[in-house]
Amino acid sequence: MRRVSKLSCAGFRFGATRAGIKASGAPDIGVIVADEPTAAAAVFTSNQFKAAPVLVSRAALRKSAGRLRAVVVNSGNANACTGAAGVRDARAMAARAADALGVPHEQIAVASTGVIGDPLPMDRVLPGIDAALGAGSRGGFTEFAGAILTTDRGVKTAHTRATLGATKATLLGCTKGAGMIAPNLATTLTFVTTDARVPADRLQEILQRAADRTFNAISVDGDTSTNDMILVMASGRAGNRGALSGFEDGLTELLDDLSRQLMGGGEGVHHVVTVRVVGARHDRAARAVARTVANSPLVKTAIAGGDPNWGRFLMAVGNAGVPLAASRVALRFDDVTMVEGGVACEGGAALDARVAAVMSRPSYTVTIDLGQGRADAHYLSCDLSHEYVTINADYRT
Amino acid sequence: MRRVSKLSCAGFRFGATRAGIKASGAPDIGVIVADEPTAAAAVFTSNQFKAAPVLVSRAALRKSAGRLRAVVVNSGNANACTGAAGVRDARAMAARAADALGVPHEQIAVASTGVIGDPLPMDRVLPGIDAALGAGSRGGFTEFAGAILTTDRGVKTAHTRATLGATKATLLGCTKGAGMIAPNLATTLTFVTTDARVPADRLQEILQRAADRTFNAISVDGDTSTNDMILVMASGRAGNRGALSGFEDGLTELLDDLSRQLMGGGEGVHHVVTVRVVGARHDRAARAVARTVANSPLVKTAIAGGDPNWGRFLMAVGNAGVPLAASRVALRFDDVTMVEGGVACEGGAALDARVAAVMSRPSYTVTIDLGQGRADAHYLSCDLSHEYVTINADYRT
Repeated sequence: MRRVSKLSCAGFRFGATRAGIKASGAPDIGVIVADEPTAAAAVFTSNQFKAAPVLVSRAALRKSAGRLRAVVVNSGNANACTGAAGVRDARAMAARAADALGVPHEQIAVASTGVIGDPLPMDRVLPGIDAALGAGSRGGFTEFAGAILTTDRGVKTAHTRATLGATKATLLGCTKGAGMIAPNLATTLTFVTTDARVPADRLQEILQRAADRTFNAISVDGDTSTNDMILVMASGRAGNRGALSGFEDGLTELLDDLSRQLMGGGEGVHHVVTVRVVGARHDRAARAVARTVANSPLVKTAIAGGDPNWGRFLMAVGNAGVPLAASRVALRFDDVTMVEGGVACEGGAALDARVAAVMSRPSYTVTIDLGQGRADAHYLSCDLSHEYVTINADYRT
Repeated sequence: MRRVSKLSCAGFRFGATRAGIKASGAPDIGVIVADEPTAAAAVFTSNQFKAAPVLVSRAALRKSAGRLRAVVVNSGNANACTGAAGVRDARAMAARAADALGVPHEQIAVASTGVIGDPLPMDRVLPGIDAALGAGSRGGFTEFAGAILTTDRGVKTAHTRATLGATKATLLGCTKGAGMIAPNLATTLTFVTTDARVPADRLQEILQRAADRTFNAISVDGDTSTNDMILVMASGRAGNRGALSGFEDGLTELLDDLSRQLMGGGEGVHHVVTVRVVGARHDRAARAVARTVANSPLVKTAIAGGDPNWGRFLMAVGNAGVPLAASRVALRFDDVTMVEGGVACEGGAALDARVAAVMSRPSYTVTIDLGQGRADAHYLSCDLSHEYVTINADYRT
């Protein structure tokens, strides 16, 4: 994974501006504009309360059969829980960009993040879209990545090269949303551009699989927001032919990097823990156990305290609704085995100290071997800390 | 609901002793002994890691076809994650009481709560069982209720009378486990004696329904322990005949009282919140929404902060996996309506202040109307506070 100072991707321009949606005056509108309509795919929040921009972007991708010219993003206001008026505003955002670019409205996706329940200040949003489009440049990706932030500590970008036969393709991505810890429902927005040539239907399949292995496998608090979105646009400029497995590997690597930045950047997060489940009967079981352990508040407080309280991990394993043979289960913290055959290993206080040493690391892996089969899965977890409570209890009041 | 100073129930004796399992020297073995084998029923933890006493008690109820002479409980050691040796120890506890009472081993249930992973100190447990049996008396219920505690602030008992035709029956219960907040996996043990006449198979059905409406509908952290158990014994001394609906009402009332004591008694719990879902298409949907909202860490931190952040409640509603029409959803805090038709009501800061006033109460009800049908359900939730993190992060270290 490389990060370079001047981020660009053939076939795209990036723009940003300060439209005055945020009271702070920080940048709050960003655009990605493709040189021509390009293949695009997206995955959206599974929350039943989908914000207006999610509804509008989903419809655009369907109507355009996965061909987009641009995406317009605002921060500072989520346009969520805003009813029919919110949908009209999201459509007006798309229309403003479409008219400026001279393309059909369905070739524009929109995304929003920020406070919920308030109407968008359209008198500032619409001129802001014009300004962001006017500011577009080949090297403006970092500015775009900055304009989508809310409470994040800083810009989160990643960049990689994928090998597709004899061709190298670029993937360039950014994300926001301090690990779903921040207030404002902690929306996660992620945008990826690539010069790889990938048909829209294949791009959708590949994105879905890559998202399931990365962004859909992180847990700060188990909640998903009304506005979550991952959008990928592929210009095709690399001119690759043949198999796309190298592209899928690259996209998965890029999204893994971004999701770890997201989790580690959360306020109050001191430990990013990979919960790895092996020896499961099938993938669904492996995933259910990994998710249940990663989401357990008792596990997260144990992670926060660096407490080698292995019983909590076993208890969470047992709460996943997956049939288990307790006598086959093993538990490791990085390379230190704490439980074998469902019972604690010999070692007493010295073993506890070795596990505590692993748990003091900023990142480590807890491996749970179910001893039942060959399927595996992983999930990212983190600590549930005093800062989490402070940030989330005291927001708004 | 009455609480009387001298608790008793016809057909039972209760005993307790200090066996030295707890380092503190507090009472740690309790027994309930029926005058003769009586109808009994139990519900056990759904955790896949079932502690040895759960396995042994479940087998006893099956073998005896729901007829028990006694239950033996120890605190201070959970006999969980102890492998085959743990099962032998749990059987030895039952055998000791059975031999003393001259009944088959399968007429004795056992329960344990306390630290996990350590072998039971049988050299203290077995003489302790003898001593507790010897100390048995008609009025010893409060002593029994004290001997099952771990980190609880105090004894939790409840007492009610059920009307069964022309007969009045007594129900007497106790519980432990500071709202699943305490360490030691926070086992919940609940014991109920009654003089009602209820066949064992009917008792099992009634207990299951009553537990689903009460203990299975509380959420402190969504985790269930390896040792959880609710056991009911019915002596039949009241001599009732005919329908048992009055008994079911009484048992539900008793378990509701005990579950609220459990939740409110948790360290760091300042608000017990009833999450009530109405207008659902069917019971399963109502229950899923109530559980998801009650378990959401973002909702719990909002409860802790007394923050009228209605977006978090809606977001959690949307995360339940239940298809919804957002535009039909309403949200009330006690009698204050905050959201109607999926959007915030007019009222601004004054409305926020009225909601904040409700949220400052030690107990209140959040009503979520899905506007889709006639099914309803409720779940108890509470605040996720700094004390929760402190208690659970710092345990053992």
